[in-house]
Amino acid sequence: MTQLNNQTQAQALNPPPRLLMGPGPINADPRVLRAMSAQLIGQYDPAMTGYMNETMARYRKVFKTDNQWTFLIDGTSRAGIEAVLVSAIRPGDAVLVPIFGRFGHLLAEIAQRAGAEVHTIEAPWGEVFTPEQIEEAIKKVQPKMLAIVQGDTSTTMCQPLEHLGDICRRHDVLFYSDATASIVGNEFKTDEWQLDAVSVGLQKCLGGPSGSAPVTLSERYVNWVRKRKKVEAGIRTEGHKDGSEPFIRSNYFDIPMILDYWGEERLNHHTEATTMLYGASECARIVIEEGVDASIARHALHGSAMVQGVQALGLKVFGNLEYKMNNVLGVYIPDEVEGDKVRGQMLEDFGIEIGTSFGPLHGKIWRIGTMGYNARKSAVLQTLSCLDACLAANGYKGPKGEAAAAALEFYAHG
Amino acid sequence: MTQLNNQTQAQALNPPPRLLMGPGPINADPRVLRAMSAQLIGQYDPAMTGYMNETMARYRKVFKTDNQWTFLIDGTSRAGIEAVLVSAIRPGDAVLVPIFGRFGHLLAEIAQRAGAEVHTIEAPWGEVFTPEQIEEAIKKVQPKMLAIVQGDTSTTMCQPLEHLGDICRRHDVLFYSDATASIVGNEFKTDEWQLDAVSVGLQKCLGGPSGSAPVTLSERYVNWVRKRKKVEAGIRTEGHKDGSEPFIRSNYFDIPMILDYWGEERLNHHTEATTMLYGASECARIVIEEGVDASIARHALHGSAMVQGVQALGLKVFGNLEYKMNNVLGVYIPDEVEGDKVRGQMLEDFGIEIGTSFGPLHGKIWRIGTMGYNARKSAVLQTLSCLDACLAANGYKGPKGEAAAAALEFYAHG
Repeated sequence: MTQLNNQTQAQALNPPPRLLMGPGPINADPRVLRAMSAQLIGQYDPAMTGYMNETMARYRKVFKTDNQWTFLIDGTSRAGIEAVLVSAIRPGDAVLVPIFGRFGHLLAEIAQRAGAEVHTIEAPWGEVFTPEQIEEAIKKVQPKMLAIVQGDTSTTMCQPLEHLGDICRRHDVLFYSDATASIVGNEFKTDEWQLDAVSVGLQKCLGGPSGSAPVTLSERYVNWVRKRKKVEAGIRTEGHKDGSEPFIRSNYFDIPMILDYWGEERLNHHTEATTMLYGASECARIVIEEGVDASIARHALHGSAMVQGVQALGLKVFGNLEYKMNNVLGVYIPDEVEGDKVRGQMLEDFGIEIGTSFGPLHGKIWRIGTMGYNARKSAVLQTLSCLDACLAANGYKGPKGEAAAAALEFYAHG
Repeated sequence: MTQLNNQTQAQALNPPPRLLMGPGPINADPRVLRAMSAQLIGQYDPAMTGYMNETMARYRKVFKTDNQWTFLIDGTSRAGIEAVLVSAIRPGDAVLVPIFGRFGHLLAEIAQRAGAEVHTIEAPWGEVFTPEQIEEAIKKVQPKMLAIVQGDTSTTMCQPLEHLGDICRRHDVLFYSDATASIVGNEFKTDEWQLDAVSVGLQKCLGGPSGSAPVTLSERYVNWVRKRKKVEAGIRTEGHKDGSEPFIRSNYFDIPMILDYWGEERLNHHTEATTMLYGASECARIVIEEGVDASIARHALHGSAMVQGVQALGLKVFGNLEYKMNNVLGVYIPDEVEGDKVRGQMLEDFGIEIGTSFGPLHGKIWRIGTMGYNARKSAVLQTLSCLDACLAANGYKGPKGEAAAAALEFYAHG
C-alpha cells in the first residue's frame, strides 16, 4: 500500500475548529450538517418529489410569500442572481441597478453579461438610497427591471425596500432584490413589498453552507419568462411549443425549464443536488421552528451587543448606523495596529475569523458578523473577549478589558 | 408551540432506504456523506485553500492528467458543461456535436444557447461514431470545438475517444468531452487522448451526490479563454486588464475568473460550496485509494455480472454490446409486462430503483446501473434476485429463478 503514503489521498478531512464571525460564510448549524449526511434517493422517487414540494413550502414562509414558484437554483448565491437576471433580460433590455457596495456592482456585471443595457446610480459606501432617488432614475431610464441588493455586506448597509414595489408597479418595472446576506436576519416581506423576484443563499443568516440558492418569483415574473420557453431537443415531444420571445441564453439558468422540473410536469433538467436540497430544507425548517420574526429579533439583539462591545473598546463603527444590517458591522482599524496581522492572529491563535473588506474600504475596516448559528450570546462574548485581548497584544492604545463587560451589560439591561 | 403541528416544519428528514440501481444518481459512498458533515471554515482560511489545492491534485489523478487547471464548478454536471462551452465559444463560433443519445442533444442545446453555430451529426441510438465519420464532419464544418459525450446513459453507449485528439490537433479544433456518466467506470485518459476540456459530475461512478462538477482544462484551452478575461467591477484594481476577445456571456461560468479564484491570485468570485467540495474531494480520495484502474475493472466486473444475470432471465440487452458502458445496461421490457408497473413495484415493494428511458427508447427499455458504491456483488445479486421475483409476480413468461445463479456462476468462473 505504498499509495497510502501519497499526500493527495492519505489525509483524512479534519477542518480546524473555527468560529466564523466574518461577513459569511459562517459555521453551519449542526442540524443542517446532520441533514446533509442523509443517504440519497432517486430524483423521481415520490419521497424526493415530496421533499422538493416541502422545500418550496418552507421557503414560502422564509420569504413571506404565497408565490407558488419558490424553489432552489443549484449553485451558490450568484447562481441564483444569474438565473433571475438571464431568464428575464433579453439582449438590449434596460436594467436599473442602484449600487451602494460591491454586490451592486455584481448585479450590474451579471446583467451586462446577459446582454442588458445597464444603467446604474451610485450611493457613497456607508449610505443607502431614498425611494425618490430610485424613482427619479426609473423615470429617466424606463427599465424592464430594477435590480437591487437588500443587505450589502461590503458596506454593512441595508437598503429599505418597502416603498420600491409601489414605484415599480406604477412604472411597470420588474422588481428584483438579492437578499442573500440579509434574509431572516433583517425584515423581508416579499408579497407586502411587491417583489417580483428574490434570490438568496444559505451561508449567511440561514446557517447553512454555500451551494444552494433559494429563489421566489411572482406570477408577473413567471408569466414573462415563460414567453421565452424553449424545451430541450433531447426531451421534447410533439406537444411542446416554444415561447414567442427570444430564448434564454443559458440552459442551466433557464427558469421556465427549471419550473417544469420542480412543477407537476417533472420534466428532467439538471439532476437535483439532493444533499444541498436536504441542507437548504433543514435551514428553512430551523428558522420556521424558531419563527422568522424571532430569528430577525435574535440577529438584532446579538448584532447590537456586538456594536456595544466594539464601541466600549473605543472602536468606531462604519457607515450610517440607522441603516446598518443587523448581522454585520464594519469597524475602523485603529491607526496603531496592522489590520491583517490582527486578523491573522485572531484566526491562528484565537481560532476566530473576522473579515477584511473590499474596494474603497480595503485596509480601513474589519467586518464582524453575528449571523445564523453564530448570532448567539456565547459567540459574541468569545469574539469580543478575544478581540479585546488580541488588540492589546498588538499595541492598541485604546480601552482594554471592556468589550465583554459592555455586551454583558447590554444583554442584562438593554 | 402550535407551530410544531405545521407540516412544513415538523417532519424530520428520513429518506426511505433505497438501493439505487438506475442510470444515476446512485447511493453515495457513506464515507462521502461523512466527509460532507464536517463543519465549515472560511473561504480564505489557509486550511480551505489547502483543501482546494488538494482537491485539484486528487482530480488530476482521476482524470489522468497533468493539467494545472483541474478544479470544481459549483453546480450539477450540466453546470460544468455550460462553463466549458460558454467560456470558449464566442457568438458565431462553429461547434461540432456528434449525437448518439440524449446528452449529445444537451451539448448541442447548451452550445446553441451560448451563441454557437452548432453543427450536428447523428448515430442511431445504440451505436457510436467511427473516427472517420467525425473527421469527415470536422473537415466540412471546420469548427472551433468538437464537443462529444463519452458515455451516454440514455443509450448505454461509450464513444471511443482515443483517436479523436489527433484529429482535433491536425485541424486545430478544441476537443471537449462530457464524461459525467463514464469517468472511473470506463477508461479515460485526458492527456494521452489529448483532450482540451473534460467535465464530469459526482453522482455516477464517483459515488457522490449531484451538485459539484469537476473539470480539467488543457493549457491550450486556458490560453484561449483567458483572451476573453474581464475582471468584475466590484473587485477590479488598476492593474487589471481585460482580454482582447469578446467577454464571456456569463459571470457564474466565466472560467478565467474562476481560475483567479482557484489560483494563487485568490480573487473572490463565488463563495466556494465548501460542503460539496468536501464531498467531491472525498469521492476522488476513495477512487485513488482503490486505484483508478482498479475502479474501472470493478465496474467492468459487476457490469458484466449484471448482464449475465438479466440474460439468464431471458431478457435482451439493448445496443451494440461492443461499445456498452461498463456501468449501465439497457434491457428490453418483455411484451407481457407493464414496464412502469414493474419499476414501481421494484421501488415500492423491493426498495430498489431501476431506470426508465428517454426519447425513442421510452417505454421500450429499462436501464440498470452498477456504479460507484453500488458496483459491488451484493448490490448486483439483490437487484437480480428481486427483478427475477418481481417479473414473475407481474406475469413474465420467461425463465424464473435463474438470475442470481448466473451472476454467481460468473463471479466464480468468469
